[in-house]
Amino acid sequence: MIDRIAILGTGLLGASTGLALRAAGFKGSIAGWNRGAEGAQIALKSGAIDSIAPEPISAAREADVTVLSVPIYATLDLMEQLATRLGSDHLVTDVGSTKLQITNAGMKHFNQMGCAAFLPGHPMAGKERGGAELGDANLFRGAAWLFTDAPGAVRSHRGLELVECWREWVIAMGSKIIDLDAARHDELVAWVSHLPQFVATGLSALLEEQVGDAPELKDVGGRALREMTRLGASPYSMWRDIAHTNTEAVQASLFALEQRLAYIRENLRTPELRDEFERANRFRKE
Amino acid sequence: MIDRIAILGTGLLGASTGLALRAAGFKGSIAGWNRGAEGAQIALKSGAIDSIAPEPISAAREADVTVLSVPIYATLDLMEQLATRLGSDHLVTDVGSTKLQITNAGMKHFNQMGCAAFLPGHPMAGKERGGAELGDANLFRGAAWLFTDAPGAVRSHRGLELVECWREWVIAMGSKIIDLDAARHDELVAWVSHLPQFVATGLSALLEEQVGDAPELKDVGGRALREMTRLGASPYSMWRDIAHTNTEAVQASLFALEQRLAYIRENLRTPELRDEFERANRFRKE
Repeated sequence: MIDRIAILGTGLLGASTGLALRAAGFKGSIAGWNRGAEGAQIALKSGAIDSIAPEPISAAREADVTVLSVPIYATLDLMEQLATRLGSDHLVTDVGSTKLQITNAGMKHFNQMGCAAFLPGHPMAGKERGGAELGDANLFRGAAWLFTDAPGAVRSHRGLELVECWREWVIAMGSKIIDLDAARHDELVAWVSHLPQFVATGLSALLEEQVGDAPELKDVGGRALREMTRLGASPYSMWRDIAHTNTEAVQASLFALEQRLAYIRENLRTPELRDEFERANRFRKE
Repeated sequence: MIDRIAILGTGLLGASTGLALRAAGFKGSIAGWNRGAEGAQIALKSGAIDSIAPEPISAAREADVTVLSVPIYATLDLMEQLATRLGSDHLVTDVGSTKLQITNAGMKHFNQMGCAAFLPGHPMAGKERGGAELGDANLFRGAAWLFTDAPGAVRSHRGLELVECWREWVIAMGSKIIDLDAARHDELVAWVSHLPQFVATGLSALLEEQVGDAPELKDVGGRALREMTRLGASPYSMWRDIAHTNTEAVQASLFALEQRLAYIRENLRTPELRDEFERANRFRKE
């Protein structure tokens, strides 16, 4: 059903997709394109892709399924470029971290009569650093893979076949599929993904100012501090587009946490603190 | 030099101290007392202690070194009870998470002519849950063990010998000793230990309200969310005394983080966000 896959962007997610497809038994061809030549070479050497495409459009034209695994604004750019160059025998899907703009662009540029199908996707997996060299066949194992296509959006028979088949590969890569509305997606990930990142960034930046000049004191925090600041290593380049495309939801979640911390600060010596710990304990209960 | 140790409180830290001493080659006796009989039994069965003492005072009187490993207010209570019952051939040390009140109590009740010596200590190791059953011979390996005694506080010859010897056992258990002033200690741990805990509690409690009724969505956050909320499982009973005895420093650190999150919230679309990520990256740089 799917013989040829093109991965546009062979960073952490793109390279991991290629490796995970191979580990799951995909026998077809996987062409890769990457903006930087080095990342494509690393992906080729690791077996994540089996050929390097010189440019993205023809790579997509030669594939049944094209996986966009570049930052969000680059994904939107490629979607515009691809829309008029692919026919109804193609499926384009993506792995972008915010979904409302991408899903809307998919409805606008794809899924029309004679056009390629578009399936907006988001695997909830990553590392605090990116790059093809960190590609990992097990990255998606046990992770949720979210899809935010509107029901009925894909209409062509071949498009529906390819969507069904891609969903099966996602499951074969070890992920659990969750379908949800794009707006609800962006609100949800603001809470469970973007808020934790921005908190870790803020905490790390604050501690850099407070104890950054005394490296021996950084170690005092031990495992707990290392975990709470691990995401502080995430580069701005990975998060800029998220901050720009999910601004309101992230602002709301940050504001809610600011209020929460103020509440704890004002109740360090009152019984309210016990209730807050108990609410937190409930969240962590299996 | 040290033949008999008493561990008062055989929870996670007390039991781990006994196990780590044995793993480091301590051949003397280790008596244990615990408020709840079950915890003492578990510590005995695991080999953390080799006898159960019926009550804490006589256990301490029969020991060269007494390790107080109970919550902070219980530590202060035991210190008062022990002060008049121990002579200058004893050392009392503790593992409490805040040190100013305990260090001051040590100067007041101990270290006088004819009195036992007191060495305020704080191993920076723990788990999000307590209990003898989680005791771990490797808990202190690679961790910092902070001491906050004022220079010259211990004066007796035997007291100085015991202090020196206990410090050697702490190193043998795998820890790195850092000496610092008690007030500076409490300020430092507010940043690197207490703030991360209260942030994890606040974040977990907030997410419990936002997505707690949809367990499948809790999983969406993956490893990053699990790490950022692991400490949310910490029970109030472990943190109440810390909140009460380091209130001002914790308040200051929480307020600083609230301001930091507001700054991020207001700059999601400005170049300031890049600078904040770069500060955070510096904190995580090895």
